[in-house]
Amino acid sequence: MMSDVCVFAPVSPAAERLRYILGEDDDMPNPTLFTEMDTLQQDGDELEWKESARWVKFEEKVEDGGERWSKPHVSTLSLHSLFELRTCLQTGTVVLDLEGYSLPQIVDEIIERQIDEGMLSPDLREKISFVLLRKHRHQTKKPIHRSLADMGKASGGGARECPSALWSRMNTLHILNIDMINCSHVLCCFTGHAHSRSMNDIADTLSTDQLRNKFMKKIPRDAEASNVLVGEVDFLDKPFVAFVRLAQATTLGGLTEVPVPTRFLFILLGPTGKAKSYNQIGRAIATLMVDDLFSDVAYKARDREDLIAGIDEFLDEVIVLPPGEWDPKIRIEPPKKVPTADKRKSVHSLNELGQPNGTAGGSGGHSEDEEIVCVFVRFCGGLFLDMKRKLPWFPSDFYEGFHIQSISAVLFIYLGCITNAITFGGLLGDATDNYQGVMESFLGTALSGTVFCMFSGQPLIILSSTGPILIFEKLLFEFSKNNGIDYMELRLWIGIHSCIQCFLLVATDASYIIKYMTRFTEEGFSSLISFIFISDAIKKMVSHTQYYPINTDFKPDYVTAYKCECLAPDPSESILGCIVYHYNLDWSQLSKKECVKYGGSLVGNTCKYVPDLALMSFILFFGTYSMTVSLKKFKFSRYFPTKLRKLISDFSIFMAIMTFVGLDRLIGLKTPKLIVPTEFKPTRPDRGWIVLPFGKNPWWVYLASFVPALLVTILIFMDQQISAVIVNRKENKLRKGCGYHLDLFWVGVLMAVCSFLGLPWYVAATVISIAHIDSLKMESESSAPGEQPQFLGVREQRLTGILVFVLTGVSIFLAPVLQFIPMPVLYGVFLYMGVASLSGIQFWERIKLYMMPSKYQPDFPFLRHVPLRRVHLFTLVQIICLAVLWVLKSTVLAILFPVMILGLLVVRKMLDMVFSQHDLAWIDDILPGKDKKKDKKKKGDKDDTKKKDKKKGRADDSKDKVRNVKIYCHQLAGLEQKKPC
Amino acid sequence: MMSDVCVFAPVSPAAERLRYILGEDDDMPNPTLFTEMDTLQQDGDELEWKESARWVKFEEKVEDGGERWSKPHVSTLSLHSLFELRTCLQTGTVVLDLEGYSLPQIVDEIIERQIDEGMLSPDLREKISFVLLRKHRHQTKKPIHRSLADMGKASGGGARECPSALWSRMNTLHILNIDMINCSHVLCCFTGHAHSRSMNDIADTLSTDQLRNKFMKKIPRDAEASNVLVGEVDFLDKPFVAFVRLAQATTLGGLTEVPVPTRFLFILLGPTGKAKSYNQIGRAIATLMVDDLFSDVAYKARDREDLIAGIDEFLDEVIVLPPGEWDPKIRIEPPKKVPTADKRKSVHSLNELGQPNGTAGGSGGHSEDEEIVCVFVRFCGGLFLDMKRKLPWFPSDFYEGFHIQSISAVLFIYLGCITNAITFGGLLGDATDNYQGVMESFLGTALSGTVFCMFSGQPLIILSSTGPILIFEKLLFEFSKNNGIDYMELRLWIGIHSCIQCFLLVATDASYIIKYMTRFTEEGFSSLISFIFISDAIKKMVSHTQYYPINTDFKPDYVTAYKCECLAPDPSESILGCIVYHYNLDWSQLSKKECVKYGGSLVGNTCKYVPDLALMSFILFFGTYSMTVSLKKFKFSRYFPTKLRKLISDFSIFMAIMTFVGLDRLIGLKTPKLIVPTEFKPTRPDRGWIVLPFGKNPWWVYLASFVPALLVTILIFMDQQISAVIVNRKENKLRKGCGYHLDLFWVGVLMAVCSFLGLPWYVAATVISIAHIDSLKMESESSAPGEQPQFLGVREQRLTGILVFVLTGVSIFLAPVLQFIPMPVLYGVFLYMGVASLSGIQFWERIKLYMMPSKYQPDFPFLRHVPLRRVHLFTLVQIICLAVLWVLKSTVLAILFPVMILGLLVVRKMLDMVFSQHDLAWIDDILPGKDKKKDKKKKGDKDDTKKKDKKKGRADDSKDKVRNVKIYCHQLAGLEQKKPC
Repeated sequence: MMSDVCVFAPVSPAAERLRYILGEDDDMPNPTLFTEMDTLQQDGDELEWKESARWVKFEEKVEDGGERWSKPHVSTLSLHSLFELRTCLQTGTVVLDLEGYSLPQIVDEIIERQIDEGMLSPDLREKISFVLLRKHRHQTKKPIHRSLADMGKASGGGARECPSALWSRMNTLHILNIDMINCSHVLCCFTGHAHSRSMNDIADTLSTDQLRNKFMKKIPRDAEASNVLVGEVDFLDKPFVAFVRLAQATTLGGLTEVPVPTRFLFILLGPTGKAKSYNQIGRAIATLMVDDLFSDVAYKARDREDLIAGIDEFLDEVIVLPPGEWDPKIRIEPPKKVPTADKRKSVHSLNELGQPNGTAGGSGGHSEDEEIVCVFVRFCGGLFLDMKRKLPWFPSDFYEGFHIQSISAVLFIYLGCITNAITFGGLLGDATDNYQGVMESFLGTALSGTVFCMFSGQPLIILSSTGPILIFEKLLFEFSKNNGIDYMELRLWIGIHSCIQCFLLVATDASYIIKYMTRFTEEGFSSLISFIFISDAIKKMVSHTQYYPINTDFKPDYVTAYKCECLAPDPSESILGCIVYHYNLDWSQLSKKECVKYGGSLVGNTCKYVPDLALMSFILFFGTYSMTVSLKKFKFSRYFPTKLRKLISDFSIFMAIMTFVGLDRLIGLKTPKLIVPTEFKPTRPDRGWIVLPFGKNPWWVYLASFVPALLVTILIFMDQQISAVIVNRKENKLRKGCGYHLDLFWVGVLMAVCSFLGLPWYVAATVISIAHIDSLKMESESSAPGEQPQFLGVREQRLTGILVFVLTGVSIFLAPVLQFIPMPVLYGVFLYMGVASLSGIQFWERIKLYMMPSKYQPDFPFLRHVPLRRVHLFTLVQIICLAVLWVLKSTVLAILFPVMILGLLVVRKMLDMVFSQHDLAWIDDILPGKDKKKDKKKKGDKDDTKKKDKKKGRADDSKDKVRNVKIYCHQLAGLEQKKPC
Repeated sequence: MMSDVCVFAPVSPAAERLRYILGEDDDMPNPTLFTEMDTLQQDGDELEWKESARWVKFEEKVEDGGERWSKPHVSTLSLHSLFELRTCLQTGTVVLDLEGYSLPQIVDEIIERQIDEGMLSPDLREKISFVLLRKHRHQTKKPIHRSLADMGKASGGGARECPSALWSRMNTLHILNIDMINCSHVLCCFTGHAHSRSMNDIADTLSTDQLRNKFMKKIPRDAEASNVLVGEVDFLDKPFVAFVRLAQATTLGGLTEVPVPTRFLFILLGPTGKAKSYNQIGRAIATLMVDDLFSDVAYKARDREDLIAGIDEFLDEVIVLPPGEWDPKIRIEPPKKVPTADKRKSVHSLNELGQPNGTAGGSGGHSEDEEIVCVFVRFCGGLFLDMKRKLPWFPSDFYEGFHIQSISAVLFIYLGCITNAITFGGLLGDATDNYQGVMESFLGTALSGTVFCMFSGQPLIILSSTGPILIFEKLLFEFSKNNGIDYMELRLWIGIHSCIQCFLLVATDASYIIKYMTRFTEEGFSSLISFIFISDAIKKMVSHTQYYPINTDFKPDYVTAYKCECLAPDPSESILGCIVYHYNLDWSQLSKKECVKYGGSLVGNTCKYVPDLALMSFILFFGTYSMTVSLKKFKFSRYFPTKLRKLISDFSIFMAIMTFVGLDRLIGLKTPKLIVPTEFKPTRPDRGWIVLPFGKNPWWVYLASFVPALLVTILIFMDQQISAVIVNRKENKLRKGCGYHLDLFWVGVLMAVCSFLGLPWYVAATVISIAHIDSLKMESESSAPGEQPQFLGVREQRLTGILVFVLTGVSIFLAPVLQFIPMPVLYGVFLYMGVASLSGIQFWERIKLYMMPSKYQPDFPFLRHVPLRRVHLFTLVQIICLAVLWVLKSTVLAILFPVMILGLLVVRKMLDMVFSQHDLAWIDDILPGKDKKKDKKKKGDKDDTKKKDKKKGRADDSKDKVRNVKIYCHQLAGLEQKKPC
């Protein structure tokens, strides 16, 4: 009994009240409230209500003289004003469910009540009514200083005159018997004995200003308004306070800035000299009205006590900033996320414990768990499930693609794809003696990509040639050449075997293995691929410098000393007769290539140099990269409207490419350009478009090719599924689910088809797929001013992918346009892709931590829970793994790439021995699909504590709720008498 | 009487109490309080106090599992915990001015009191004492999991054993008769009948950990500690609360993390199950203890009621965030500035109205008003005042220059100066037929700069040649050439006249005129100069492209077709015999220059091209600029410790120059380099170092030169004084004052000296002077964690300036080093200087507003008070003025530059008719020195309202203060009985 006094409090009556009223049937949510606060202003001898602030969720204030809305900010109140408001509600008039149809009638009603209750002297009736019915000036209107012409017009209109004009007019019309008794400088007021309906300044109908107000689109459709009117007048000697809830939301003419019907009305008129105080009270009630919990209370309150209980609950939950640590003048920017009202409300509803926790992903959150968990249900079970899941989305996969964002995504990915096709095509051509060249690369990319995007489980994945495949082809070609085996036929059989093996993996739901992948493996893989992208882009650029060497010894003044001449070969050395033929040539007219071709020798000090091209290439390369980065960042600048900025950001790569293609054209140097094949025929003239399966190799080769096929299958499986896992990341909020089995099925099919056509093999490309997703991200159009736009998910559809690959196929005919694009520009795009795909990776963030003193480190959740040195150790292990992979990748062992990734899994497994499960749970987040089954076993530690915490927290919460300010107040009052604790 | 109930409250007893105790003699400020909160933790069967948070000004929390300090943040409390704390202080033991010398004694004392008052049962004495004397683990120590070896050691040491170890030891030693009665899993407790002094776990002396704690430097020297101990134990059924103030601050062994003596002690032990609640109460009292006002109350409180009154006052001032708009989990970063405690305290002190308002500049704030306001006191009055003001600072002007920052400043400004000297030297040489060339420019810069920095009133100003002077010299030279007047002698006489005129201006205190300059003029001038810098840098670079044209038609394959040959002139055309001599030449071996010189003709398609140099120059130019910008920004990144970042930022220009000089060397192209004269002799061989005043021109020229001298004087006066005004800006917080008259005096002297020596004339250079100031800015080493470093002022001294100019003079011998610096790198530095000096200008910020939708505009104070379209109009006028000036500047009219600036003053005067004084006061801030005299006349409008506001605000404040939470509570309690309002 003693202990209660100091720390504990019993269930308070306020909490009980709320539990009662909020516990009622809750199926109809209350409308959103828009709150407008108007203050009484004196301009010359005109009195009017001027909008001074508004709330949708956050406060927007009308700046003092700036005639502008402030930025939305968190309403910082003083505790004082909240207590004053509480007192006001206790002492003022509270009318709930008033049948109101117009403001004059409502005002009459309130005044009558106050007079009836003896709170107001009847002779103030007219004065108060007059003040309350002055017209309302909203921030949308012109400034308060109007021209004389305006005023002239107004006096004809009837709804706009200032009191003195009205006054004279009323005198003229002999409507009223007026008794002027109290004309001070603050309020040139009057009292009329007659009914003052005609003094109503408020329009009955909505003005065009109201209807045209663009702010309307920030307010939900079903919203209702609450109007707060505060002001000081000189005829009152005590405040006139009223809180009204209308039975039906009613449009009260020009009361509200927007055409939203009013439900609540709070009026505070008080004696002069306390305007600041009234303002604060007005802000307090306005803030309360937009509070989710209090607005619920306001809608459901049965009496004054319910409202007071609502305030008490609010007070109990407010957050307090110490006056010495914060300046109340600072406007606090709305936070990224605020706690949901449901959580606060649930405490008061009776079925509190039965409710599930709201998950971040929402109900649509993708159902990966389900499809991955049910391992080997039956033969091809996963495949059928995938198809069943994807089929209903199929139509929407097309019509959802129609969006401006898709255009930029298609352009971006298309450029990435053809650059990739050309690069890999060139390399494959070198590696296979042109059996597969740039033409095959284009055709294969177009074919595989289109089919995959059309039918796969995850059409956001972009197929491409990858490094390991390239190395495999190279080794295979060398092997067959050295052993006299026909390369194309062998390759066909490997493809067939591999296809069959893929089908087997699909049928046995082997994709289950990806459940063993954690952030560790996934990040290791994607970082490696990103590094390869970056290093390839830079390597290419460096090779440019070697291809176009700079003559660093050039002295401008000695320009006369530089030349390069083609000299005819020495006839004495010529043995072959054909050279005689060339003697007819004018050797000095030959180009470099011709000279070398005909056996001439190049003599001179400029022969091996090419001026300007190397430097120009670097300018284009870094220029494209930096411009893309800057334009991407432009989204977060303050300039221009959001939509324009978003557009610029979406099209940043396109604009950067265009700019630097333009610059290149302008300067006109012969920089290396993108060259696409223009004729539809195999690169090597001696091969056709179809590879025949039999005839060229001995029969045992058909069977033996099973072994290399196995390697290819592992390679493809790992590459494909890890990329798919990365694409399907929880963070991307995909709602159409994924389809690992279906994906693999189609990759297998395409393997076989490409083998028959003699085209390269294709598999998911991590970096380009990430770029694809990034360019299709959707954000909410923020609703309430100040609310942060939320990441909604990705525009999941098949259209962009299909278009990219159709365009790739058509590129053969686009050569005249594409030939203007310099290669360094495309390498700049590559560099950007690599860097951008690194930026989202936690591993990368952790590397940065090495260089930050701990007090500057960002507030990552894992840093709050895991000691820094453990985090560093984990990162170090990852770095070492990556370094080892990087070294291996540069050797012939690259072909074992998939096996190495399995190695990552092993290393990760060993980490279980070094790190506690608690630490791993924080650093090495589990991937989607892993939670459900393994959580309890593997992360039991973390989960248990978490659950305990949660339960305890909830219990605490519900206990904590059962107290309120009034209780303390009683205590305080009681304990004043020095009752010992 | 009724009105009081709803809104007003009479003077509350709390406020009266505070007024009484805080109004006492206030000459000795209380020490700063460092607060540490320790919570009771159970590890295994060991019980200890673990540090969980600390406060210097803001809260730093020990992260749950991260073993790290959180970032300092504003303590967000719940209102609930504050009320609970209030109750706790009302019911618990409050001991003020206890004579305590050790923790055990203090604990004993408290327990005895509680037992005496019947609040604690005597049999709990030992248990509580045992718990309170457990050892304290601070965050500086190793993690809680210690090795077995550690534990072994500890059991020998006696101060480290866990209870069970202690237990067995005590048993062994037969010291105590122990009765184990209550061994739960939460607290393996025991009760001993004997006196438990030996159970004290707390060391009596300071540990090395404490002494070595680096955190000490964040705490003021005179600080005292307040320790908050909260925990839950299972043997209590009601909380044990104590608040202790010691008579003398005493070091209580290992209680506090740092070796700071403890003054306050708050203890809260409570029954189990409410740990979270106790924690919150602990945080609440800790936050209160670091609150300036409450800590004052705590030091001066006479009894419990005073403390309660302190809490009530605190509550009355807290800032409240609505729960629906803010997530309490967000840690709020400390604000840039918090309201001073003085303002809050002053309300309570009796001499409230007599106190002046604390100004931002502080008492040292410079006394410009004084020296400018007293116009023409007596002959040379201003000059003598300037000298009187500067003389006492003279020694410190040298020793204050010894700082690492000075090195970077010297390097930066030195490079700017020599680039300037070379550029202007070259141009002057062209303009005056080498009468004044690069050599004269170097010498003049060195001489004038050194003398000025040594003796002037504002040694931060850097002298330099400026554009208008250059144009004047050009016109003068042409005039004398055309009229057969000796240029050097004429120039000398103009110099002499101008010098005399300057002395006249000094003697008559004419610098008073700068008082008419507002932000409008000042910004117009400095923007113009910045634009000139930027455009000059870019123009120079463009001219590079013309000087080194790129052969855009170059086809790498046709390298054989490019050459440039020097052909001997056609003998038939040769008329002069000397050409015959040249026939002996090997024409093909001649360089381009030689070829042209000897009359040969250059034939070939590469003759007019220079490869690579243009592009390389651009790479160096943009590279230097971007690297400087990035490194400057690096100061705000999260990487590396602050000091290192500051160093990098300070030396950014030096590092950028070094990097690109290195790159240039690496590539080895013959980019244009900085070439300084190496021999000490006049550029033109036919002139000496002294110009004689008589002999070459007719006598009337000596008198007539008075007229052009007048123009030069106006030019110099305006240029010099506007730059000085910009340097002496209030924002720069200069403390040594300025010396407009003294500056002008020395400029005049130097005019004459330079004229005699035939050197160019020098005047203050705006951009370089701003750069000088920027590179010497000082920031406070932030004291309390989370407090923003404050801009303290500029390292005002003469050393850097003198060094810069001495170095410039010595540059003639530094040629071997300087010749490696490519000119494009220096132009990059110029570009940076121009852009950087724009960035601080409000005009520039206003231009940016044009492109921002109003909701994204930054929260500038003038935007809150002036309608946007007025701001835009003002900016537009400025832009038009600048455009006109820019156009004029590009013509011969440039010589009238000073007159044009007077034109700006006129335009500004006319703006008075367009804009209201209220608007102008906000947009066109008055300059230092203008406020005092003109405020009342000119800005009467603004000032009056402001003053009214202030007075009203103060009255409001003091009235507002006279109420507190308790009053409402009484009201609440009272009004429960439905007494009508």
